[in-house]
Amino acid sequence: MRHTGKIIRKKPGISPGSLVYTGGNIREKVNLQLVRFTEDTESFFEALSVDSLFENLDKNQVNWIHVNGLHDTLIIEAIGKQFDIHPLVLEDVLHIDHMPKLAIYDDYIFLTFKMMSSGVDNELGKEHLSMILGPWFLITFQETRGDVFDHIREGIRSGHGRLRKRGADYLFYRLLDTVVDHYFVLTDKLEDDLEGIEELLLKQRLEGVSNLILERKKDMIFLKRNILPLREEFRKIRQEDSALIAPGTHRFLDDVYDHLTQMGQTLDGCRDLITSLLELQMAANANRMNNVMKTLTVFAAIFMPLTFIAGVYGMNFMHMPELAYSWAYPAVLVLMASVAVAMLIYMKRRKWF
Amino acid sequence: MRHTGKIIRKKPGISPGSLVYTGGNIREKVNLQLVRFTEDTESFFEALSVDSLFENLDKNQVNWIHVNGLHDTLIIEAIGKQFDIHPLVLEDVLHIDHMPKLAIYDDYIFLTFKMMSSGVDNELGKEHLSMILGPWFLITFQETRGDVFDHIREGIRSGHGRLRKRGADYLFYRLLDTVVDHYFVLTDKLEDDLEGIEELLLKQRLEGVSNLILERKKDMIFLKRNILPLREEFRKIRQEDSALIAPGTHRFLDDVYDHLTQMGQTLDGCRDLITSLLELQMAANANRMNNVMKTLTVFAAIFMPLTFIAGVYGMNFMHMPELAYSWAYPAVLVLMASVAVAMLIYMKRRKWF
Amino acid sequence: MRHTGKIIRKKPGISPGSLVYTGGNIREKVNLQLVRFTEDTESFFEALSVDSLFENLDKNQVNWIHVNGLHDTLIIEAIGKQFDIHPLVLEDVLHIDHMPKLAIYDDYIFLTFKMMSSGVDNELGKEHLSMILGPWFLITFQETRGDVFDHIREGIRSGHGRLRKRGADYLFYRLLDTVVDHYFVLTDKLEDDLEGIEELLLKQRLEGVSNLILERKKDMIFLKRNILPLREEFRKIRQEDSALIAPGTHRFLDDVYDHLTQMGQTLDGCRDLITSLLELQMAANANRMNNVMKTLTVFAAIFMPLTFIAGVYGMNFMHMPELAYSWAYPAVLVLMASVAVAMLIYMKRRKWF
Amino acid sequence: MRHTGKIIRKKPGISPGSLVYTGGNIREKVNLQLVRFTEDTESFFEALSVDSLFENLDKNQVNWIHVNGLHDTLIIEAIGKQFDIHPLVLEDVLHIDHMPKLAIYDDYIFLTFKMMSSGVDNELGKEHLSMILGPWFLITFQETRGDVFDHIREGIRSGHGRLRKRGADYLFYRLLDTVVDHYFVLTDKLEDDLEGIEELLLKQRLEGVSNLILERKKDMIFLKRNILPLREEFRKIRQEDSALIAPGTHRFLDDVYDHLTQMGQTLDGCRDLITSLLELQMAANANRMNNVMKTLTVFAAIFMPLTFIAGVYGMNFMHMPELAYSWAYPAVLVLMASVAVAMLIYMKRRKWF
Amino acid sequence: MRHTGKIIRKKPGISPGSLVYTGGNIREKVNLQLVRFTEDTESFFEALSVDSLFENLDKNQVNWIHVNGLHDTLIIEAIGKQFDIHPLVLEDVLHIDHMPKLAIYDDYIFLTFKMMSSGVDNELGKEHLSMILGPWFLITFQETRGDVFDHIREGIRSGHGRLRKRGADYLFYRLLDTVVDHYFVLTDKLEDDLEGIEELLLKQRLEGVSNLILERKKDMIFLKRNILPLREEFRKIRQEDSALIAPGTHRFLDDVYDHLTQMGQTLDGCRDLITSLLELQMAANANRMNNVMKTLTVFAAIFMPLTFIAGVYGMNFMHMPELAYSWAYPAVLVLMASVAVAMLIYMKRRKWF
Repeated sequence: MRHTGKIIRKKPGISPGSLVYTGGNIREKVNLQLVRFTEDTESFFEALSVDSLFENLDKNQVNWIHVNGLHDTLIIEAIGKQFDIHPLVLEDVLHIDHMPKLAIYDDYIFLTFKMMSSGVDNELGKEHLSMILGPWFLITFQETRGDVFDHIREGIRSGHGRLRKRGADYLFYRLLDTVVDHYFVLTDKLEDDLEGIEELLLKQRLEGVSNLILERKKDMIFLKRNILPLREEFRKIRQEDSALIAPGTHRFLDDVYDHLTQMGQTLDGCRDLITSLLELQMAANANRMNNVMKTLTVFAAIFMPLTFIAGVYGMNFMHMPELAYSWAYPAVLVLMASVAVAMLIYMKRRKWF
Repeated sequence: MRHTGKIIRKKPGISPGSLVYTGGNIREKVNLQLVRFTEDTESFFEALSVDSLFENLDKNQVNWIHVNGLHDTLIIEAIGKQFDIHPLVLEDVLHIDHMPKLAIYDDYIFLTFKMMSSGVDNELGKEHLSMILGPWFLITFQETRGDVFDHIREGIRSGHGRLRKRGADYLFYRLLDTVVDHYFVLTDKLEDDLEGIEELLLKQRLEGVSNLILERKKDMIFLKRNILPLREEFRKIRQEDSALIAPGTHRFLDDVYDHLTQMGQTLDGCRDLITSLLELQMAANANRMNNVMKTLTVFAAIFMPLTFIAGVYGMNFMHMPELAYSWAYPAVLVLMASVAVAMLIYMKRRKWF
Repeated sequence: MRHTGKIIRKKPGISPGSLVYTGGNIREKVNLQLVRFTEDTESFFEALSVDSLFENLDKNQVNWIHVNGLHDTLIIEAIGKQFDIHPLVLEDVLHIDHMPKLAIYDDYIFLTFKMMSSGVDNELGKEHLSMILGPWFLITFQETRGDVFDHIREGIRSGHGRLRKRGADYLFYRLLDTVVDHYFVLTDKLEDDLEGIEELLLKQRLEGVSNLILERKKDMIFLKRNILPLREEFRKIRQEDSALIAPGTHRFLDDVYDHLTQMGQTLDGCRDLITSLLELQMAANANRMNNVMKTLTVFAAIFMPLTFIAGVYGMNFMHMPELAYSWAYPAVLVLMASVAVAMLIYMKRRKWF
Repeated sequence: MRHTGKIIRKKPGISPGSLVYTGGNIREKVNLQLVRFTEDTESFFEALSVDSLFENLDKNQVNWIHVNGLHDTLIIEAIGKQFDIHPLVLEDVLHIDHMPKLAIYDDYIFLTFKMMSSGVDNELGKEHLSMILGPWFLITFQETRGDVFDHIREGIRSGHGRLRKRGADYLFYRLLDTVVDHYFVLTDKLEDDLEGIEELLLKQRLEGVSNLILERKKDMIFLKRNILPLREEFRKIRQEDSALIAPGTHRFLDDVYDHLTQMGQTLDGCRDLITSLLELQMAANANRMNNVMKTLTVFAAIFMPLTFIAGVYGMNFMHMPELAYSWAYPAVLVLMASVAVAMLIYMKRRKWF
Repeated sequence: MRHTGKIIRKKPGISPGSLVYTGGNIREKVNLQLVRFTEDTESFFEALSVDSLFENLDKNQVNWIHVNGLHDTLIIEAIGKQFDIHPLVLEDVLHIDHMPKLAIYDDYIFLTFKMMSSGVDNELGKEHLSMILGPWFLITFQETRGDVFDHIREGIRSGHGRLRKRGADYLFYRLLDTVVDHYFVLTDKLEDDLEGIEELLLKQRLEGVSNLILERKKDMIFLKRNILPLREEFRKIRQEDSALIAPGTHRFLDDVYDHLTQMGQTLDGCRDLITSLLELQMAANANRMNNVMKTLTVFAAIFMPLTFIAGVYGMNFMHMPELAYSWAYPAVLVLMASVAVAMLIYMKRRKWF
């Protein structure tokens, strides 16, 4: 199965910047949250209307606006107007199948990527996540309500650590870091699953292994397609030295880049292992087939000569002198046993069973 | 089958710039259309002669000339002369097998690429499309008459959106965007088809799957060969900052570039999936063969010993005392049944059926 | 078989610039031709001696010297001395196995590459071709006499087109273009051949297909090895802006570069198709084997039980009451028919035939 | 099996720079060692407390601090504070699954990589190793106590060679060189193991070979993943010309880079060889299967006709005149022998055994 | 088997620049040769002691010192001291498993690479060769005494050609060119061998082909590993424009670079051909197996029905009326023949033999 639900695409030829939500069914009401803080103060707002959200903004503080749900395009549009975001950027926010992308503009940095987690039934869950970092604000857009950022909110509330002391760029880093840390859970799980398959193969248990390998390979490809481009996009932060990122924050972002690189290498290792598993499976298949053939050949090699001997003495010729000897029957039985034993020894020597 | 009809090539050694249409049969009369507009006015002309086309041009407006059909080389030549287009560019317009290409000259930008759509019989339909963007004009050349740009014409007529407010470069972008949006339909379809094949394979339905995979693989390669080079060509627009593209239009063209990149990644995913399907098919084939062999071996392992036993007691020796016992026949039948059951148990244990 | 005849190499350690012809047998006399022209005049000389060739040169005209045959190293050496060509360049002219190479020197541009054509017996014919372009002359070296440039000579004679109006660099381009156009014939043929093989495979006609694929794969590799390096070498013309190439000629040379790029992509497509054909062949092989195995198993599954039943009633026990019943024989025949029919139904259901 | 024990990861969302040891069980007490030397003097301290360590430092000498064991994060933290090391660097020191990394900061150079050795049971042993090189100090962190650097300590004590004459950067090089030299042992062993597998395959001993190849392939991948990135990281030393590395030391570091490059090539060779071994195994498997099939066919081809002949003369027709002839039985036996011999000759000719 | 003898490595941790010969057994005495020449004079010295070697040097002439044998490290060390060569360079001279390397220093250029030749038993022979080019001297180090440079010595003695007229850099080129020309012999041989294998495969002679392919593949890899890095190293000569190479010599060195490139392409071709051969082998294997299976099936399909019929009339039922008819036996024989013929026709039609 594919890793995404059905995508609803904009009709070809539609004017660009027309905001169309490309995700599936419409879910609960969009939830607007605002966290506003300085080193000394912090305020939390929940379930705001667009208007009250705008009223509560304060350019002298760090303003973290979190939009839970993408299906109400009017809200997205209003936010876009308020913060002067380009319509094509808003389009990317709504385009839930969009690949990871980071774009640095004069007034803000736009980042869209995937939150991924190990879902039910051994399937990868994923969610479209976008961030817009301005000088005094950070807007995050999430498809569905989740608790992944509760830790961060807790950190802001408690006032410990660097979170309250630094600006929106550090908050941006921390949210990103949290998501990327979740990726590690997935790559670890993938490695574990592949080891499990390897053990199955080493025990010659081949039933259904093809499908298991295929599923894991698709996971690996899916992770790679979301992690490696994100890493490539990340280079831009270093290259285009934006004023929106404080110098001290760069080192933290480099750390995220490092993590993405490490995951890329882990995934390369997984790809190599999958190739090895396929080779192992092929060899195991060949081995199994060989064993079946050998069994067949052993039976044929033993019973064909014996049946032939029996057939000879079943012939109805009148002049077959040996038929009359009383020792003939036991002698033929001994002959048959000898032939069978000889065959068995021969095949044993050739290691056929 | 190949994705293009038979190409008629220029004979080797023919002087360059000799205009030869390389497509197949000559079709209906070439249709010349002109759409002329400013922010306030718009005029539509249909089925023009070359002369009346030139008379109706107005350098103070945006002039969109659409040439439907490439087989009348005289018309192409006349347009080339009027707008001072290099003969080699005109040659590329007529070369319907040409790969995607974008060339930036001082006076115009030339782009040739493929319009692709899902045709009948599950085959890809494709059409050669060329665009020449000048400061006040846009010329588009299309092999056959189609309705793909009707949306755009409608947009110009209605006057909504940015189309009438911006210049020929924005129109150039919109036409391009429309075609590229059509590509998404094809990549989505390809993904769906591959999923269908995967399901067939998981159900062990192997008949004809080789051909299905081959067809899809050829589609994938064909899409890749038309999409990736277009993307590469597109880089030039950023690198060579032509005065023909207004600064505000660049962001829109970047968006097209993004879409092409995303498609490239989707196609990479399809390629990986195709490889996996082939591996799955191979494993399924090996499995199927194995099952046939096992069936054969099971029959041989049961009936060869039984037939042998029957053969022994079919021998005509005079002195076979057991033949005379009344319990001998039932005893041998029981022996035969025991051998058969023992074989079945043994094979059941080795999971042979 | 290899695509080249046996190469005669220079003995290791021999002084560089020693001119040794590395081709096979010595053929007819080397033929020297000279075509001299300006926009208004043209002269053709045939079968010149070296001395009369040099006498007929005129620096105020374009001088095209064509050397038919490479085995007379004295002629090559004399020409080298006259035009002050570096001995290593002359060595490359004679080295018929040399890969495509373009070298730009102060006084001349040296290009060596392969002329290729579809030869007899479905084999690729190839010929070593070298060109030295100076400010007022163009020297071409060809292994064997051919008629490939007759078109160009005709064009010069007629005086139509650009040939007479432009310099030696344009003539250089036209010759090159002619050869490269010939390559298209080969890539088209390769594509056609591969389609033919695909059809064979789809019809399950596997005999000899391995060799057909191998032959085409070798063609593909051979074409690639001669076309792609030529393309790479061609980049130098753009990079090192030699005074020997007039500005207006660059656009024509770019066109050749484009053609080479397109062929490279076609060959990539062929490579992908060949891989697909091999996969198809493998699947077809597995299928064929499977069918043979099924046939065998069907026979065994039907006749082994029947033969066993016959064997049972062929036993010579005295007390086999059923032997005496008059309905026993027909009953056993019916039993046998039932077993056979049951087996057939079972196998039909499992789609074994 | 995987090459690392279970990694304990930081919980996602935890503040960066929180020091968490990611290795397994807590082992013996962390051992702090200090070696302090100039060209003339040297002092060795063992099992220091953190405080006495700091007291014994002397900025006018080279101070080599060796930390044996990573599980006491308080010690790591204290050292970090003393030498002003960034918390993220300390995090990397503790992250035992970290890939090789070299980072050049203003005040120190940080390098983390793996020590690898051939462990028990033919498995690769590995250990996380980090180095921080400052102007007058070198700090090394090692997971477990080992004797790999005893040679270097001996060299410092003896005062021979360049070790005492040069600064901390040369000591840094020597430690690194020692570890990299150990890699050679592993790549040599890998090559030897692969040769052993090749010999097994050439002797047609296929049992268990799949697993052997898989194990070696995983070793190869593991080595590659630790050696190649280290080499890439090493480039930085050349590129960013840090003042911490004396000019004369660069040549020595280049030598380490060379060694890593050579190992990379050796591993490439191993990869190619593994591919060849898999191909060889597949061919050997096919060959073995073929031999089994041939044996079966030989038996069937000989005994099926013979058994049929015997069956014919076992029929109970009343009018079978040949049954009565006295020479009939020997004649049939001769016929049977002839058929068997004919079959054997036929199969011998087709090289079936 | 591996292409090198057992390497003796330096023990890890040993001080760098400690000279240890890593080759095998110690052979005959190291032979020092000196060739000293100017355009007008030349002197040859053989079997010199180190001291007399140094006495005979003359900075106003070209001094070619040839060291035959690497096992006397004292001689190497003395030469290193005399010409002020870095200890790490001398280490590379002695490290016989070193990959190709070219290093340009201020005072000398160091090059180490492999001399390769087609040895006995179809195995590649190789030898470690190093060159140190200074302004007035060239030192060459060779593992064993060989006659490969006799040509060059002859050229110096005779005074013909450029050798005496140019400096040490041209001599350096000529020696290099000689070795590289020897490579061509090997790549030609490899191509021939592969053609031979192809012919075997086309004749369906599969015995031992796996090993033949493997051996040639290892040769190909070995050549590639020695030729391609040498080519890469060669780029440095162009990039870092050393004063040690006269401007006129660069063109000659470019020619060597060209040759190495060409060999690289030939080896790529060989790699592709090897892949094709493996595919061909696999298809041939499948074909062979198929033929065996068909033979088996043909026998089974003919004799199983016949044996069954014979079995039916071998049954001992009392009431089998047909047994009594005199025409029954011939009729059954005719029936049997018909069945056999029908089967043969059926199988012939399906092209089974």
